[in-house]
Amino acid sequence: MPIPKPLARERNPQDRLLMGPGPSPVNPRVLRALSEPTLGHLDPDFLSIMTETMDMLRYVFQTRNALTLPMSGTGSAGMETALVNLLETGDKAVIGVAGVFGERIVDIARRCGAECTVVAAPWGEALDPGRVAGAIRAVRNPKVVAVVHAETSTGVLQPLESIAAEARNAGALVVVDAVTSLGGVELQVDRLGLDVVYSGSQKCLSCPPGLAPITVSERAAKVIRDRRSPVQSWYLDLSMIQRYWTQERFYHHTAPINMIYGLHEALRIIVEEGLESSWQRHLANSEAFCAGLHAIGLHTLVSPANRLPSLISVKVPDGVDEAAVRRTLLTEFNIEIGGGLGELKGRIWRVGLMGHGSRERNVLLLLAALERALQKHGWAS
Amino acid sequence: MPIPKPLARERNPQDRLLMGPGPSPVNPRVLRALSEPTLGHLDPDFLSIMTETMDMLRYVFQTRNALTLPMSGTGSAGMETALVNLLETGDKAVIGVAGVFGERIVDIARRCGAECTVVAAPWGEALDPGRVAGAIRAVRNPKVVAVVHAETSTGVLQPLESIAAEARNAGALVVVDAVTSLGGVELQVDRLGLDVVYSGSQKCLSCPPGLAPITVSERAAKVIRDRRSPVQSWYLDLSMIQRYWTQERFYHHTAPINMIYGLHEALRIIVEEGLESSWQRHLANSEAFCAGLHAIGLHTLVSPANRLPSLISVKVPDGVDEAAVRRTLLTEFNIEIGGGLGELKGRIWRVGLMGHGSRERNVLLLLAALERALQKHGWAS
Repeated sequence: MPIPKPLARERNPQDRLLMGPGPSPVNPRVLRALSEPTLGHLDPDFLSIMTETMDMLRYVFQTRNALTLPMSGTGSAGMETALVNLLETGDKAVIGVAGVFGERIVDIARRCGAECTVVAAPWGEALDPGRVAGAIRAVRNPKVVAVVHAETSTGVLQPLESIAAEARNAGALVVVDAVTSLGGVELQVDRLGLDVVYSGSQKCLSCPPGLAPITVSERAAKVIRDRRSPVQSWYLDLSMIQRYWTQERFYHHTAPINMIYGLHEALRIIVEEGLESSWQRHLANSEAFCAGLHAIGLHTLVSPANRLPSLISVKVPDGVDEAAVRRTLLTEFNIEIGGGLGELKGRIWRVGLMGHGSRERNVLLLLAALERALQKHGWAS
Repeated sequence: MPIPKPLARERNPQDRLLMGPGPSPVNPRVLRALSEPTLGHLDPDFLSIMTETMDMLRYVFQTRNALTLPMSGTGSAGMETALVNLLETGDKAVIGVAGVFGERIVDIARRCGAECTVVAAPWGEALDPGRVAGAIRAVRNPKVVAVVHAETSTGVLQPLESIAAEARNAGALVVVDAVTSLGGVELQVDRLGLDVVYSGSQKCLSCPPGLAPITVSERAAKVIRDRRSPVQSWYLDLSMIQRYWTQERFYHHTAPINMIYGLHEALRIIVEEGLESSWQRHLANSEAFCAGLHAIGLHTLVSPANRLPSLISVKVPDGVDEAAVRRTLLTEFNIEIGGGLGELKGRIWRVGLMGHGSRERNVLLLLAALERALQKHGWAS
């Protein structure tokens, strides 16, 4: 054989404490679920697991939408699914941008041929609903208004109520990125009248990365049915995928069986705890962590009113080598936190308190470890 | 909460013997790998696992292509990745169609705006290389020539050598679907001069579904770099994804960490066995199974010269209710086999002998169980 055998050792991944922007710590019950025997994608036992997964997703999204399912890709595949199914060449979209994930929405919407009007806010702040409303009026009948509920690059929680109302009044479909909020931060899809909301498995749902839950309102489903052109992505074409998930069990692609076992178990854990309890837990641990940060002399990027409970941006103190601090946390304390992205690179750390990771003991440990790591690197508060 | 808690039982998936068109039986070592602790997608330990996974994929593809990695989706995402990165609006493609997966290539290529020329063969037969060569000449400078190496809907193995040579002589890029052949059927990417070859994790690699290995020649990578327009899929854009997998570890999307553990272990198992031994094992078990079929009076759809070792199409005898036979196999023997797709629906069974499932004991068991199930449903050979 021209290409010889390579050498690969057995993996022995360390039990890192994942307190970065995701993946988050996975509940051991979910890890065990991943290794259950693989069923066929049309096996009657698997079809029951699919139906239950959809029911539990409707609960965490707080929606009655029939079209609610996990896409076979990571959170960004959920974003692309939302946009590629709704938008056609020449359609108008108003998009809120206050971080990397808002920018990503614009990038994908443009690849769909949409004319995008961007409403920007400084990174670290929420969008001004009045400016979004102004853009909706100026654009005249945008097809889509898209915003990020939980901006993972900044740690801002975007209030949705007035933006959603304004968009619906203008006849637009409301698309919301809930990758870092679903399951951990209050989000009531039907009450707010949101049309397409997507998320990822690896944040507040405490499942490994690889699936993108999505929910689609009947209003949006009708827009998809009435498209003039085929969806440009075959893999993410909801009109085909829903035939497998919701009606005839018509084969589209082979579902990622074991990942869906994991998501099913992760959702069962949220159902057991109760969604409101999960929201409250995330909020309480986030407040405790921020209080602790202030006590040791550190500051958060985002003002308390707009702070995301699942992801906290911590300002890097002047003169501190932020990468060195993260390296110390990783190598000496086995804790992962994240650095800044885009224009916040080098200026913040990103700390995730998500899902199974949002626990008091993790708050205490990280505060203590962070203080030591900072002292090691010459910081005196 | 308006949407009440749903009930979902603990899963208890049966240990089915998966002898359909995929997913195939997963080696227990791979199932265990899935439940190892989740690492961050930029963790140094995970980066080593990525590098080793790429090395082992190069071995199973028999290629030196730098751009060789698993896409974060199922086999169909691999197909879309190949086409969406190479094709732009107005590009010409010659596509071989002799089953569902050839049709799928045409569907996706058209969504990329390509002008497709189809070279068809009857389902159950291979493409005529002379007719493919004729189409390549008639189209004049097609950008892409795409064929399915192992057509999962019919059980045909397509010889690639002369088609690939003809395409390259015409300056076209050769795209090959190896979803049901990679790891189980001889395929030497560099020796044949193939440009883009994709597969799925859940066939001869014995891993659960969810990843799509792909390899891209330097010639094809240059075509991607020189595109006039952005790739229409952000999620599958190889020019961005390779920055995460091969150069700067620049964040694109969060890799499906635990699935990659599974693929890494599945590839280690193939390396231990040796690729040629795996090809020989698939061939030997397939021949034994076909001999057994003939001994009990059943016939294969495909003539021996074009028969795919990993997937055998068995003709349903006249007067037999094919779905009833499959139900009996599932409920009484806990064995899954597949039915026909598309124009072969109701006319064939599809039997997979793939990866960990290609074993003598499975051949013997299925032959015995199939004979009993047929007798139960009134068949006398």
